[in-house]
Amino acid sequence: MTRVLFDLCGIDEGLRFSPYCWRVRYALAHKGLEVQTRPWRFSEKQALAFADHDKVPVLVDGDEVVTDSYEILRYLDRTYPEAPLLGEGLAEARGRFFKHYAERSLAPAMMRTIIMDLLNAIHPDDRAYFRESREKRFGRTLEEFHSPAKGLAQLDAALEPLRGRLKEADYLDGVAPAGADYLVFGSFMWARCVSSADLVSNADPVHGWLERMLDQHGGLGRKALRITDIEGAYR
Amino acid sequence: MTRVLFDLCGIDEGLRFSPYCWRVRYALAHKGLEVQTRPWRFSEKQALAFADHDKVPVLVDGDEVVTDSYEILRYLDRTYPEAPLLGEGLAEARGRFFKHYAERSLAPAMMRTIIMDLLNAIHPDDRAYFRESREKRFGRTLEEFHSPAKGLAQLDAALEPLRGRLKEADYLDGVAPAGADYLVFGSFMWARCVSSADLVSNADPVHGWLERMLDQHGGLGRKALRITDIEGAYR
Repeated sequence: MTRVLFDLCGIDEGLRFSPYCWRVRYALAHKGLEVQTRPWRFSEKQALAFADHDKVPVLVDGDEVVTDSYEILRYLDRTYPEAPLLGEGLAEARGRFFKHYAERSLAPAMMRTIIMDLLNAIHPDDRAYFRESREKRFGRTLEEFHSPAKGLAQLDAALEPLRGRLKEADYLDGVAPAGADYLVFGSFMWARCVSSADLVSNADPVHGWLERMLDQHGGLGRKALRITDIEGAYR
Repeated sequence: MTRVLFDLCGIDEGLRFSPYCWRVRYALAHKGLEVQTRPWRFSEKQALAFADHDKVPVLVDGDEVVTDSYEILRYLDRTYPEAPLLGEGLAEARGRFFKHYAERSLAPAMMRTIIMDLLNAIHPDDRAYFRESREKRFGRTLEEFHSPAKGLAQLDAALEPLRGRLKEADYLDGVAPAGADYLVFGSFMWARCVSSADLVSNADPVHGWLERMLDQHGGLGRKALRITDIEGAYR
């Protein structure tokens, strides 16, 4: 059986930076499932028409087509019940909070910090789409939105509950990572792949967790291509 | 068997505002357990000597003495396993995040907003202790720390993940409230009992959840005495 993940790429086909796709990459590795990733760019909406969707991740698992990172994690738990990602009942209900925490607390703070790096990492053919859709969302130009000082202050505040939790345990989900860790960590992979910005100081309990997460599943995150690895790409 | 909860009180014996005690009051109600609350003030450290502890909540459950709100919830799950509060495994690991979210994101933002109301609600005999311990913690006077404008802006940002979650479900823990809801709601009860500040607008999805939480367990929260109910107490 072929398992294929449509995965956002940037200026280089190997540069994969979608936080949502990173959730799924880690989730598949957690289940011990092999996957072929297929590079996809924002402008290639047509390539996802078969899934009746216009965003990645899209997972094709044999005959099944699943969209949306959270739904893919749920699908993986249903189909491959060993080593739960989200689990059921209270565990699953609480798992959802981490999705919102990543998307509504962490990502906006990071976005403010790395937006110009992100624009630079995106494929030139995608930049007009990216600029237009994001400027509409933010209600101002990317340049006006860009404020590392504000973004980092916002991130510092947003990290507080993560710090508290990671002072008492190695992972959000306890002694080993699972769905909550992947939901949150995806946002850090996003920033890591497109930017060299230091988002978290070495002394922060979050830093140790990031290092552990990078090493998980054979160094899946640590091996990922970063913009800084591509000659002449980082400006 | 007598079950007793030592519960922080303020200027009036009936004014109970500790966010940690409110977690436990709701947790006991969730389990259908009766409890006698015993009013306690900050200066009555001696009254807790039997528990080898100097803070409330302290729960005396027959021969068992349990301190710390989170540990009390765990104790209740172990001893009365029906209707889990925190649950086990991934559910419990994730439950801990809500404790940190309440204590490190929400409470500091609320504190900044309501600190002078809080001082006013505390028993006069406790105010010197409260001022001294908090000024030491904040590194400035209560008056300098007090900033509703900053506090409310901070709270607005901190509420984002809660909003996201409560747009998709009635409670953090799904169709009915459980431990995660109580861990977070305690902070809102704290603010509600000592202050008339509007922390959340009517249009916020968090507002609907607060209303539902106030009605839970026979209106446990809604019936609680507020400073505004005590003649001449609110200034």
